[in-house]
Amino acid sequence: MSAEPYEIVDLIRIKCDGGGLKDEQIDWLISAFTRDAIADEQMSALAMAILFRGLSQAELSRWTHAMIDTGERLDFSSLSRPTVDKHSTGGVGDKITLPLAPLVAACGVAVPQLAGRGLGHTGGTLDKLESIPGWQALLTREQMLRQLEDVGAVICTPGSELAPADKKLYALRDVTGTVESVPLIASSIMSKKIAEGTEALVLDVKVGSGAFMKSPEAAAELAQTMVGLGTEAGVRTVALLTDMSTPLGLTAGNALEVREAVEVLAGGGPADVVELTVALAREMLAAVGRDDHDPADVLASGEAMDVWRAMIAAQGGDPDAKLPVACQTDVIIAEIDGVLWSLDALSVGIAAWRLGAGRSRKEDPVQASAGVELHAKPGDPVRAGQPLMTLHTDTAERFARAREALIGAYQIAQAAEDRGPLILERIG
Amino acid sequence: MSAEPYEIVDLIRIKCDGGGLKDEQIDWLISAFTRDAIADEQMSALAMAILFRGLSQAELSRWTHAMIDTGERLDFSSLSRPTVDKHSTGGVGDKITLPLAPLVAACGVAVPQLAGRGLGHTGGTLDKLESIPGWQALLTREQMLRQLEDVGAVICTPGSELAPADKKLYALRDVTGTVESVPLIASSIMSKKIAEGTEALVLDVKVGSGAFMKSPEAAAELAQTMVGLGTEAGVRTVALLTDMSTPLGLTAGNALEVREAVEVLAGGGPADVVELTVALAREMLAAVGRDDHDPADVLASGEAMDVWRAMIAAQGGDPDAKLPVACQTDVIIAEIDGVLWSLDALSVGIAAWRLGAGRSRKEDPVQASAGVELHAKPGDPVRAGQPLMTLHTDTAERFARAREALIGAYQIAQAAEDRGPLILERIG
Repeated sequence: MSAEPYEIVDLIRIKCDGGGLKDEQIDWLISAFTRDAIADEQMSALAMAILFRGLSQAELSRWTHAMIDTGERLDFSSLSRPTVDKHSTGGVGDKITLPLAPLVAACGVAVPQLAGRGLGHTGGTLDKLESIPGWQALLTREQMLRQLEDVGAVICTPGSELAPADKKLYALRDVTGTVESVPLIASSIMSKKIAEGTEALVLDVKVGSGAFMKSPEAAAELAQTMVGLGTEAGVRTVALLTDMSTPLGLTAGNALEVREAVEVLAGGGPADVVELTVALAREMLAAVGRDDHDPADVLASGEAMDVWRAMIAAQGGDPDAKLPVACQTDVIIAEIDGVLWSLDALSVGIAAWRLGAGRSRKEDPVQASAGVELHAKPGDPVRAGQPLMTLHTDTAERFARAREALIGAYQIAQAAEDRGPLILERIG
Repeated sequence: MSAEPYEIVDLIRIKCDGGGLKDEQIDWLISAFTRDAIADEQMSALAMAILFRGLSQAELSRWTHAMIDTGERLDFSSLSRPTVDKHSTGGVGDKITLPLAPLVAACGVAVPQLAGRGLGHTGGTLDKLESIPGWQALLTREQMLRQLEDVGAVICTPGSELAPADKKLYALRDVTGTVESVPLIASSIMSKKIAEGTEALVLDVKVGSGAFMKSPEAAAELAQTMVGLGTEAGVRTVALLTDMSTPLGLTAGNALEVREAVEVLAGGGPADVVELTVALAREMLAAVGRDDHDPADVLASGEAMDVWRAMIAAQGGDPDAKLPVACQTDVIIAEIDGVLWSLDALSVGIAAWRLGAGRSRKEDPVQASAGVELHAKPGDPVRAGQPLMTLHTDTAERFARAREALIGAYQIAQAAEDRGPLILERIG
């Protein structure tokens, strides 16, 4: 007989049969899994049962807090500024964090962005910033706090381990087909955000082919679940549901996206990137009572660019350094005259990944310069023979598979139809 | 990139989403799992998805045959007798194989019983026979064939490994809460029976508290699924659904059950054990066209006892040896006068297990003499102060937990009600 208070098989059976797990059962589950007292094959079976049966609100809340309790918690209460964070569920060309964090910081708010690296077809914010010569992602807790106080914005990987149970569980879910469970996604994201200690949080929940959630209904369910968890934990939380049927902006790839973010900070850049940056900034400022600032004005004033430069420099980066440029390019040409009717986000994300911008396994390197540059967005007129996209890579043998991903990825029509809005819904 | 033709995560997702797996995907799944190219945490997630989504008839058939293909197949075609096997899904006090195999063999049929050891509250046929001094379970294929030809009945563990994928998968299902899936149970049983090469098969599907299947509906679904698999594979297969709400006969425990089986072979024994033995024998004889024999007559004639003695002796056992007797006994007394109204099979099974008759882990030993002896069956009159049950064990400290299992396990009423039939349904 084991010295453990429960038999994991009994808890799996309860969930299978549609029953609820008690608080102390959930606490034990997460703690025992973290210290390897529950085998991976048992936790994956439970995760699959949860995928089918779900978790009640009470179970989900306990599950999230049990994951938080496996690690450290940060504390920003010593800062003179209020704190607000933003989290995106991930999309193609989603470089919004890059202009957004300095923009909100320029309004007197502290923006702690504990970011991750990319896996699969969505890019990671740290991968993007690492294309800036000298920039370092890893900060100690003290360095992070000092930068938040002095500069206002930090995008880093935390020295402390937040919710290590989540890291272990996510790695298991990734290889067992159990990622796509709303409560498991919500607790994975929110355990880290609550442990981080931010006062407020704005969620950008992506919807569409390039997003994890393909339908607005699924995205709204995830958003509501996360807003509920955050609010209950005392974090003022709102979510925007935003379109990810087509890439954000005109670039997907690390250095390519940094370049575009800098254009936005300089007052230019693609309209959709500017729109979403400003909309998220407004939500973040409102969440901490700083809605006396208009982020559009702050962007135009150049103050956000000043914070960007200070933020990059504070982490060892040279904001004036030339960004890496790919050795090889390949151009995709429009076959006919017309209007670009659709351009599929997932296909572009996979092409950028195959060009070297993303990784298949955590330990793979990425190419800083690789990616896809778009010359037209849905709704734009195109001419036969003119470039639609430029593919960038340092390794020309990657072009063939990237082009394969783009077969059927776009349609050219004779007339444009109205695009739907970029921001679909606000939940909070 | 792996050299495997499929990514297991993709196949798990197909099953999660309610889709069907293709023949070549199933072949790969089972083969890759058997050679450890699919991790346990992945297979357990798939098993859980199957528990929720099921398998179509086509998937189930392919799954079963893919499991068969991982091991050897036996071939009884060289025998001069027709072959017929019986399989019980397991119950408390289910010693039926012991009188049944020699009875059917006495009618000129070969009965190859590849039996297992017990786990949990149901006893294993090999554990029961091993209480006979000298008796050996392990036979080579040649010894098994010779005994089938000469004696007609063999109860053994096969030297050849039949469907090793099933052994590996069952061990995984056992610790991951994924045992209770009708297609996975059916393919587990039928892969071994089809690989064994019997011409005909009679299934005894137990229903009730002491059985795996608690409801007649669930038992009928399992029976139909197994009959379908057997028939499709060319094995004439029928199933009886039989009651397992109360123990079979008056004993649960290894040597205790052998003693009862010998009583039946001698023309006595409890009525329910005789009824089920004769009914299953009739089905087995009918399945191979030998229904000119009446098993009740053969039992009465003593011919079945002759085969029993030859069968035990052929495997090194002494049919005249004294069976082990427990050092310690403890008696449970009727508190009031009345009629035994119910006696719960599961509780008696757990009590026998705790007394030492069963094992919790595969590698545990069992006590030959331990178990529960019943002095009344439901419907029998009882008197206050008279013994209801005797508990047997070699280790007296086991009595307390065995008695705990029996709290509330029986009810004494003032009047009897009609018991339902022992044989509930025939499917085939």
